[in-house]
Amino acid sequence: MTSKRFVVIGGDAAGMSAASLARRRRPDLGIEVFEMGEYTSYGACGLPYYIAGWIPELDDLISVTPWEFMEKRGIQVHLRHRAQRLYPDRKVIEVLGLEAGRVKEVAYDDLLIATGAEPLVPPGVDTGLEGVFTLRGLPQAEAITRFIREKSCRRGLVVGTGYIGMEMAEGLAATGLEVTVVGRRPLVLPAFEEEIAEVVAGELKKQEVNLRTGAEAAKVERVPAGGLRVTLTDGGELDTDLVVIGAGVRPRNELAVEAGLAVGVKKAIAVDRRQRTSAPGVWAAGDCAEAYHRLLGRNAYVPLALHANRQGRIVGGNVVGLTTEFPGVLGTAICKVFDLTVARTGLSLKEARDQGYDAEKVVVQSGSRAGYYPGAARILSVLIVDRKAGRPWGAQMVGADGVAHRINTWAAALAAGLSLEDVYGLDLAYAPPFSQVWDPVLLASKVALKGNE
Amino acid sequence: MTSKRFVVIGGDAAGMSAASLARRRRPDLGIEVFEMGEYTSYGACGLPYYIAGWIPELDDLISVTPWEFMEKRGIQVHLRHRAQRLYPDRKVIEVLGLEAGRVKEVAYDDLLIATGAEPLVPPGVDTGLEGVFTLRGLPQAEAITRFIREKSCRRGLVVGTGYIGMEMAEGLAATGLEVTVVGRRPLVLPAFEEEIAEVVAGELKKQEVNLRTGAEAAKVERVPAGGLRVTLTDGGELDTDLVVIGAGVRPRNELAVEAGLAVGVKKAIAVDRRQRTSAPGVWAAGDCAEAYHRLLGRNAYVPLALHANRQGRIVGGNVVGLTTEFPGVLGTAICKVFDLTVARTGLSLKEARDQGYDAEKVVVQSGSRAGYYPGAARILSVLIVDRKAGRPWGAQMVGADGVAHRINTWAAALAAGLSLEDVYGLDLAYAPPFSQVWDPVLLASKVALKGNE
Repeated sequence: MTSKRFVVIGGDAAGMSAASLARRRRPDLGIEVFEMGEYTSYGACGLPYYIAGWIPELDDLISVTPWEFMEKRGIQVHLRHRAQRLYPDRKVIEVLGLEAGRVKEVAYDDLLIATGAEPLVPPGVDTGLEGVFTLRGLPQAEAITRFIREKSCRRGLVVGTGYIGMEMAEGLAATGLEVTVVGRRPLVLPAFEEEIAEVVAGELKKQEVNLRTGAEAAKVERVPAGGLRVTLTDGGELDTDLVVIGAGVRPRNELAVEAGLAVGVKKAIAVDRRQRTSAPGVWAAGDCAEAYHRLLGRNAYVPLALHANRQGRIVGGNVVGLTTEFPGVLGTAICKVFDLTVARTGLSLKEARDQGYDAEKVVVQSGSRAGYYPGAARILSVLIVDRKAGRPWGAQMVGADGVAHRINTWAAALAAGLSLEDVYGLDLAYAPPFSQVWDPVLLASKVALKGNE
Repeated sequence: MTSKRFVVIGGDAAGMSAASLARRRRPDLGIEVFEMGEYTSYGACGLPYYIAGWIPELDDLISVTPWEFMEKRGIQVHLRHRAQRLYPDRKVIEVLGLEAGRVKEVAYDDLLIATGAEPLVPPGVDTGLEGVFTLRGLPQAEAITRFIREKSCRRGLVVGTGYIGMEMAEGLAATGLEVTVVGRRPLVLPAFEEEIAEVVAGELKKQEVNLRTGAEAAKVERVPAGGLRVTLTDGGELDTDLVVIGAGVRPRNELAVEAGLAVGVKKAIAVDRRQRTSAPGVWAAGDCAEAYHRLLGRNAYVPLALHANRQGRIVGGNVVGLTTEFPGVLGTAICKVFDLTVARTGLSLKEARDQGYDAEKVVVQSGSRAGYYPGAARILSVLIVDRKAGRPWGAQMVGADGVAHRINTWAAALAAGLSLEDVYGLDLAYAPPFSQVWDPVLLASKVALKGNE
């Protein structure tokens, strides 16, 4: 009997997590990975900080090299190979080797589609234009860095006011550029409540980042005198030396769609909680796939690194015979915006109400440390709660200190279904360098329960 | 009908929290507080940092002044008044006014004993000796600071290797003193596992603090040439200019004991979860009282600020007719030791085993941020787990970065009764400046579940 073949399309975190777990459990399994690019499993989330100049080498972002996957883990990695067709009935994929230009068919017993996501580009913006970049991977990050240096750029324009937009604004500003951020929506960070977004907008202003909201980039063209001109949908014009598109992503679903696989939320590949697609033996994980949302009780599209890693491990486990399920996302996310940390978990007010939940907003100011202790800073919390049921649906925080891991207390509380009273009763750590006696999490739940009593 | 009288003995956090909550709920209630000292409700936990010189004014530690309690909250505060006898049958206390030297009887409908704790002093150490201090309150902190300055101290000796001992070592070192810490036990921080204690001992060494463990101060005497000589139980001698006793506390229970009230763990005043003592109408809260432990399912003695505040509020609520219960402690604690943060929650291995729980230790190294991100530091986690049941009993962490609020994720998990699998499935915040993709909490639970798979 020949051993089973597990084929993975996409060498990013989801794909390599699946391959690695399957290998550890089953040394005899044939595992092949086909990756379009030249890298596997790198820290894409670190790219803005590489551009900022805070990470000396691009290689520092690579956690495991293709060589290590092959030599140490016995996983066959084919770089520069694109899977261009899937035949689920025959259990075969057609792969194009980009170097040799040759096509071959590869048979699988289990197939993981982990093709990730690709940047959304506003219509009218030509990413082929010199000086216009998306932030897709290591080569783009390197190209941006080289372009800034070689063209002696003074100005940078970021399209997008989500997480990547904010991080890129900071990354470009750190190189000394004068930065402008352009966003379609009236407020930055659309996943956050307006109280939080306003604090972030204030930070951008403080950092001398120009913020142009309510308008999208409609056209980018080279100016004869040098540099680029960005025309906005509201008719405004902005001159810059560099444009970075960070306006969200869409699932790279073509292979699945053409093969007739079901797609779901935002056309991400539809999966169950074991990450099975609609085709037998075909799995999907990471930014190309849906993710089960625990608080919504249904799938959502949440292309973040932890979920990709976790879904990959779920697939790896299932392929070797474990029956494991993706535990689901809670809507947790975090972002550094210059001196501020912004974090959320659970549902926004809109998400909760769209779901039919009884929900309102509670806004609470607190301090990150004892008021008298050096470094104490304000933390603004916004809770989304069902006051009648005494139940939290979501929590968001912003501040210059002590936000990052506090949001995780709320994440644990939401996952466990704790009531506001339960959260208020938690025994959270207190010492003056780290918290007020009543931690901001306790204080916020208290205010939600009892007002300012 | 005259309004009811609520009498509070002790003006610290527990007492003033009770008085304040009762006042907000019942404007007509007669509320009187008798406080031995000259202050109410101050941040005792900040004293080491005042001594360090990091908090400019002692007054900064006072959150609410006696005047504010009286004028703004309508609470009668009697400073320098000691309750010296309790007659539970007659519902009367006998109070000595320390200024006037006069004794009077005060009748109550409800009485709260919130007398706090007092420092344990090793036998043989005379705290009356010049240069020997305990750290009981604002006056002592001021006296220590004045003594260091006026006597131009060069050397300081701290008795005790618990939280206060560690904090005082840092506080004294910050003033430029050469610091020695003496502790009875072989390791520092007895509430922590040895793996954590060893990291902390390493930090003390790095900070050039002399650590003498396994020996207690047996005698302190003045040396004719100037300064103090401390003789240890192992015969060793240490010369110093200043001795600070920070070797734990015991509940100030005399009033209750003499009145025949039941005492429990470590002779703390026995209470139920509503903070009722064995005498009708008499409540106890804070460092003089027991505290219900959620994981042990029984009372313990855990004299920490959050519990005192919380128990005070529970009493205040009950006095005005609410039926609220103290949710209980989880064993959460945190301590800054120079550049390190040490934190714990839940049970130690010994506590779990003493309780009859199936428990073992899992030690996990992880990183505070993405490995490539500036400021990333190691975090050592020690979990106490029941591996067969897949259940966590306790978590401890130490590191230079990102420890403080991560421990709260474990606290929430323990309070909610989450399994290790549940914790491993949490959606915790990830971005390179704040975490590895798999947060140390997730990584630790994974290792506990699956080893290094």
